[in-house]
Parts: sequence; C-alpha cells; structure tokens
Amino acid sequence: MTTTHQPLSPLNWTGSQLELLDQRQLPERIEYLHLDTPEEVWEAIRSLAVRGAPAIGIAAAYGVVLGSAKAVQGGTDAWLDAVKRHAEYLATSRPTAVNLFWALDRMTARAEALAASGAPADSCQEALVREAEAIHAEDIETNRLIGEHALTLLADGMGVLTHCNAGGLATAKYGTALAPFYLAAERGIKLRVFADETRPVLQGARLTAFELHQAGIDVTLICDNMAAAVMRSGWVQAVIVGTDRVAANGDVANKIGTYGVAVLAKAHGIPFYVACPLSTIDLNTPTGAEIPIEERPAEEITEGFGRRTAPHGVRVYNPAFDVTPAEYVDAIITEKGIVRPPYDVNLRKLFETR
Amino acid sequence: MTTTHQPLSPLNWTGSQLELLDQRQLPERIEYLHLDTPEEVWEAIRSLAVRGAPAIGIAAAYGVVLGSAKAVQGGTDAWLDAVKRHAEYLATSRPTAVNLFWALDRMTARAEALAASGAPADSCQEALVREAEAIHAEDIETNRLIGEHALTLLADGMGVLTHCNAGGLATAKYGTALAPFYLAAERGIKLRVFADETRPVLQGARLTAFELHQAGIDVTLICDNMAAAVMRSGWVQAVIVGTDRVAANGDVANKIGTYGVAVLAKAHGIPFYVACPLSTIDLNTPTGAEIPIEERPAEEITEGFGRRTAPHGVRVYNPAFDVTPAEYVDAIITEKGIVRPPYDVNLRKLFETR
Repeated sequence: MTTTHQPLSPLNWTGSQLELLDQRQLPERIEYLHLDTPEEVWEAIRSLAVRGAPAIGIAAAYGVVLGSAKAVQGGTDAWLDAVKRHAEYLATSRPTAVNLFWALDRMTARAEALAASGAPADSCQEALVREAEAIHAEDIETNRLIGEHALTLLADGMGVLTHCNAGGLATAKYGTALAPFYLAAERGIKLRVFADETRPVLQGARLTAFELHQAGIDVTLICDNMAAAVMRSGWVQAVIVGTDRVAANGDVANKIGTYGVAVLAKAHGIPFYVACPLSTIDLNTPTGAEIPIEERPAEEITEGFGRRTAPHGVRVYNPAFDVTPAEYVDAIITEKGIVRPPYDVNLRKLFETR
Repeated sequence: MTTTHQPLSPLNWTGSQLELLDQRQLPERIEYLHLDTPEEVWEAIRSLAVRGAPAIGIAAAYGVVLGSAKAVQGGTDAWLDAVKRHAEYLATSRPTAVNLFWALDRMTARAEALAASGAPADSCQEALVREAEAIHAEDIETNRLIGEHALTLLADGMGVLTHCNAGGLATAKYGTALAPFYLAAERGIKLRVFADETRPVLQGARLTAFELHQAGIDVTLICDNMAAAVMRSGWVQAVIVGTDRVAANGDVANKIGTYGVAVLAKAHGIPFYVACPLSTIDLNTPTGAEIPIEERPAEEITEGFGRRTAPHGVRVYNPAFDVTPAEYVDAIITEKGIVRPPYDVNLRKLFETR
C-alpha cells in the first residue's frame, strides 16, 4: 500500500511553548499538553507523556529554553546560570536514555559559547532557541537517513518484528526502527510488521500499532510472549528495534523484553538489527554493565489496564530496560550507515569520520 | 516459610450441583458459580471461568452427570444416549486440552459398561456420579505425587520460573507445576518463584501470583518479556510449567509463551521441566504438529482489562497455545515418576507399566 500518511507529530515548538502529544492517552485520545516551564517538561518526561530516546532529548532541549527565558533580564551570567541549572535538573527526569544527556550537554555547551562571545542575554536566548530547533530538525533528517540504510537490509514480502515503539512518536518524525516501514510504504515495497505489545506500558500496542495502522502499513499486533511462536512459524525474516543507549562495545540498552527477542531471533536464525542515531551511541559507556537500568513502580504491572490484575501485596520486579549483549546484534543502523561487528572498533570509527 | 495454607478449591460437587470458582474474577473477587446444566458447564469452560487442563476435565465429567440426570426416567437406553450426547457436546467447549477428551471418554466408557451390566438407569446414574467423583479425587493424589517427584529436581534456595497457572486452581488441588512449591513450603524448603504474568489473560498475575501469595510462598510477579533478563541475572535455576497436551514424541502444548520460555531457558543453561498427569499425555497424537492450536478473540489483547489498549481495526494474532518441541524439554514429571528423553520410547513405557 502506497501512502504519504505520516504519524502524528509528538512535539511542536510554538515559539514560546512546547506542545507535547500526551502519549499516555493513545490510542484512545489525541491530546496535546501545553508546557510553559521546565518543571512541566520534567514531569512530562518522567510520567511518559513523551517517551522515546530522541523525543526525550528534543523535549529536554526546549525545557532548557523555557527555563532560561525569564533569566534574560538578569544579564548574561544569570542567564547562563539558569541554562546550566535547568539542564542539570532536566537530566534527572530519566536515567537510561543517553540522548537526554547528549541534548542537554549540547545546549549547555552552546550556551557557554554564546555567553563567552559577549552577546547580550536576549540574543543568547534567541540563539539557544535556534539550537533546540536545530536538534529537532536534525532529528528528522537523521531518521530519514536511518530509514534509507535500514531499507537496504529488507526486501519486498518480508515479515519484520519490532518491540516497543521506536517510531515517529519516539522521535521528531519517521522514527528509527520504524523509519524503513514509512519509506517502504511510500515506495510500494510490501513489508509485514509484527508489533510486540510491550508490557507493561504497552508502547507496542498503543503507539507502534497505532501509528503504523493509521499510516496504512500492514501491522499485526501480538503479545510479547507470542514472538517465539511467530518466529517459529517462519513469518519473520528480520527483527529491528530502537535503543536508549549503545555502549562502546555494542551492548544495547532498550525497552525491557528486547534482550529476550534478541535471544529468540538468534535461536531462529533471524537477524537482529538496532536502529539509532549517533547521539544514542555513548563511547563513554564501555559496556552494557555500566548502563543504569531504571526500575519503575509495581503498579504499571499490577494495575496497568485500569483494573487490578494482581493480588495486593505481591512482590513485583519491574525493570524498564534490559541490555542486549553485542554478540546478539547483527548490525547497528545509523544515519551514517550500517555498522557491523566488531563494534568496539567500528563504532569508534563512525565518530572519527564524522 | 512453613505454611499449611492451601489454595482455594476451584470446584466442588454438592451432590446435585457443580460449584465453580469463577477464575475470571480473580484476584479481585472470590465468587462461585452454581451450575445445574451441561450448557452452563460448557459456557464456563469456554469463557475460562474454569481453566487448566485437569480442572476442565473434572468440570466436564460433572457436566455429563448434570446432563444425564434427567434422562434417568427414560430408562437405561435413553440415559446412555444422554451421556454420550452430552459428552460429545462438552468436548466442543475447547479444542486443545486432552484431559477434557480423556475425562469424557472415561465417563462414556463407564456409562457403556454400566448400561451393559443391565442395572436400572437410576443406579447407573449414581455409579456415574461416583466415577466423576473418582476422577476428582484421583487428581488430588496425582498432583501430590507429581509434587513429590518434582521436588527431587529442586533444592533449597533455588529460583524457579513458571508460566501461566498450573496450580491448585488449574486442578483439583496442589496443581501440577506448582505442586512442588506447596510441598516445599510445608517442609521449610525455601524456593523463590518467578511468575510470568502470561498475557493476554494474565493467568500468571491473577492466579499463580494470587494462589502462591495467599499460601505464603515467596513469589515475584514479572511481565512475560522480563523472563530473559531474570534468567540472565542468574536468579533462576529451573523452569517448571504445566501442559495441555504432550504428544507421543514429547512435544508439549501449553499456554502461549511457553515455547519462548523454553528457548530462553536453553540459551541460559537452565533446565526446563514439564509437570503433568498421565492423562495429559496423548500417545495417539504423534507429534506437536497434530495438536490443534486454538485462536482466541482479538479483544483479549486489544481490550482485555476493561480499557482499550490498541487502535480499532488493527490486525491481531492471538493463539492461545504454542508447542514446545521435545528437544527443549529436559524432563516430564508425572505421578509415576520423572521421564527423560528419548520421549518416544520412554513415554510409551510409562503406560505399559501402569
């Protein structure tokens, strides 16, 4: 099916306000939050109104400029101080996604350069808003390139399984793991997507199935525990997922369940691909063992559907992410091309030739 | 923790009525259905008010006697006819669990023998009720024995992962896969159980976590997609599950997701055990390929717990079971002992020495 139908935009900058699609309400309601303060942005990130590593980074960048806007009156020093303070604060919203820290570092570095240039605070603020807009715009182009590279690994008629949501809703547009599906649909290449629902928060059901279905892309929703049976049935020729952080050795942190999908893919001889921008690759994290794994409240599991589905008082383990060791990753697909093992060498090369 | 706390009884026979614990309401409400007709029993099986292969078989056996009770006035031929008709009808309630057919065949065979003996219809009916009660009572003893044998494979301090509910609620008492946990608790042997929540119907959250927690057994609830991470953390030394049907070659049909757990267990070097009574082993089914796999309504996935969690109109695949090939099964634990590969030989032996 050829379509030009694009996913909803997860975030828009009005010039003075951040409009955020409230992804917690999907697929039932399409509602935008209107955020005026860094505290509101922090809360929106924390509570998963916005999620997906690239989208979190973009939201946080706008959060910084919302925080520094009022400090303009105090002069350049006070303004720079406000930028740094709000960047540090926004970095505490979620611990795993490196894009968050990458975007905040970029905003802080830009602010320092602007302040050092001797420009007045209001000019600095204007330039810093343009930096956030640049991060936003670059993400769209990055994702399109990731989609182009990913598409070279896929062929007409293939079944492709994905986990969680690394789609248009997780980024500025197109997504990372889902980008090739949008490009394929535009070009009449038929791919059949299997979307894991992705408990406990159901990003696969609520977001991936939602955005692909509304774009007219062939998607079949399954529960996470059905992926193995679908693979054994021979319906899947590739797995492609996003990531929240890639370590220097190629270990990949992503939504809980990704590691299991990778092990199942290997057992069935199916290639396992990770799609992400360079900003998600963290050469300062040597291996997956150094990636902090966020644990989230038990209630996501015990009453996630609005109804209590587990006994009161039962012990629950709810890690938000897991780490897939590099040996399970057949390729990492970036805007600069496809990286193959050995990752410790080849990821580093990617940055050297930037 | 030593405890004598036992799970709730999933079904009771009053002498004229079948009381069934409505497992769809757990863990929120403990409600018994009072069933007077085979149609009510059929519906209870179909709609999962009662589930678990052994419990379904017992419920169906009582369903037959509820159906034949009124036919007593018509004489022995009419009575036998009613038994056969209701057995055939009840066999259509669910397609996968072989215990259902085993129990119905046993009831029909007993009824034929009773009718052939020349006994009056009311005596035949009384004896047939005793047959259903015998199936019920034998299941309790069978499960106790399965628990004893299973316990020889486990040791104090172990973590054990289970999927779905093969517990006291799935049987007359103790359960199959969960039987060793009850026996261990009674003897002060500490086991740490990890219960997969088991989407889409959440038998692991609603039933396994419920019955183990209320019995004071150490249980941690996880989402299905967390099993791989838990295994990698080294917290699990064995997997034990129930089954709806074992084929003659040792292939195992069980709740969807079981196959994935088996593949993950093998990848992590963790033994994968299946616990079941002999009545679940079907030597007339050569391999897992011949086991019909029930597909259930999409709504179990898209709006399973009162809230829509997927877009309207999206395609859904919802198989209720999968087949785990024999090569993934380290042992099958029965009331007659532990069976190891080669299953094609050793399962047959089990019946020869009965």
